[in-house]
Amino acid sequence: MTPDQLSATFAALADPTRRAILARLAAGETTVNELAAPFDMTLPAVTKHLKVLEGAGLITRGRDAQRRPCRLAAQPLQEACDWIEKYRIYWEQRFDNLDAYLEQLQQDRKEHPPQRRKPHGK
Amino acid sequence: MTPDQLSATFAALADPTRRAILARLAAGETTVNELAAPFDMTLPAVTKHLKVLEGAGLITRGRDAQRRPCRLAAQPLQEACDWIEKYRIYWEQRFDNLDAYLEQLQQDRKEHPPQRRKPHGK
Repeated sequence: MTPDQLSATFAALADPTRRAILARLAAGETTVNELAAPFDMTLPAVTKHLKVLEGAGLITRGRDAQRRPCRLAAQPLQEACDWIEKYRIYWEQRFDNLDAYLEQLQQDRKEHPPQRRKPHGK
Repeated sequence: MTPDQLSATFAALADPTRRAILARLAAGETTVNELAAPFDMTLPAVTKHLKVLEGAGLITRGRDAQRRPCRLAAQPLQEACDWIEKYRIYWEQRFDNLDAYLEQLQQDRKEHPPQRRKPHGK
């Protein structure tokens, strides 16, 4: 995958409606009309989103001229996932650091328990 | 993470220079000048990319007014990864289908080996 194809994938995902369309298509192929219904969008607006998704290779359209059903094509998602996965160590490390910090805090409290204040008036 | 934050993350990743900046920052924090050097870009151009990355929460800037070092903040990548991961079954299924198809092909060839043509002239 060239860098520009990866950019096209991420750009296509950078919109909640397009992500919702992909989620709908994950349940099975469907026509543009069926896709448009739950979104309360005009057909041209949905078609515009579909063109972006198709351009990024995230959907394919059937050949039936009347229906042209849309189908999820998950392959570019795999490549996007592979790119992001390289950074897994950085977000996991963040939690490791937090874990280490909390353990240290617990250890400190065991070794130096907070002193109880004397009750008032005694 | 709200849908708009997820959109901001994907939009920030939809550019090869910004992805290269993140890759550089994965190796350690650095100043804007150091970041700009390998990219052959003007400082304002790099600064513009950094603003997009910072807006998406993918980098943080240090408080030192002179240097303002940039640091990778991988947390939004985890959320982007979680979103894409939901589709893993679809791209894996694709390869499962291919595997099944190739196995079937192999089986068919075993059961019905291609007939050898008779040599010419015999």
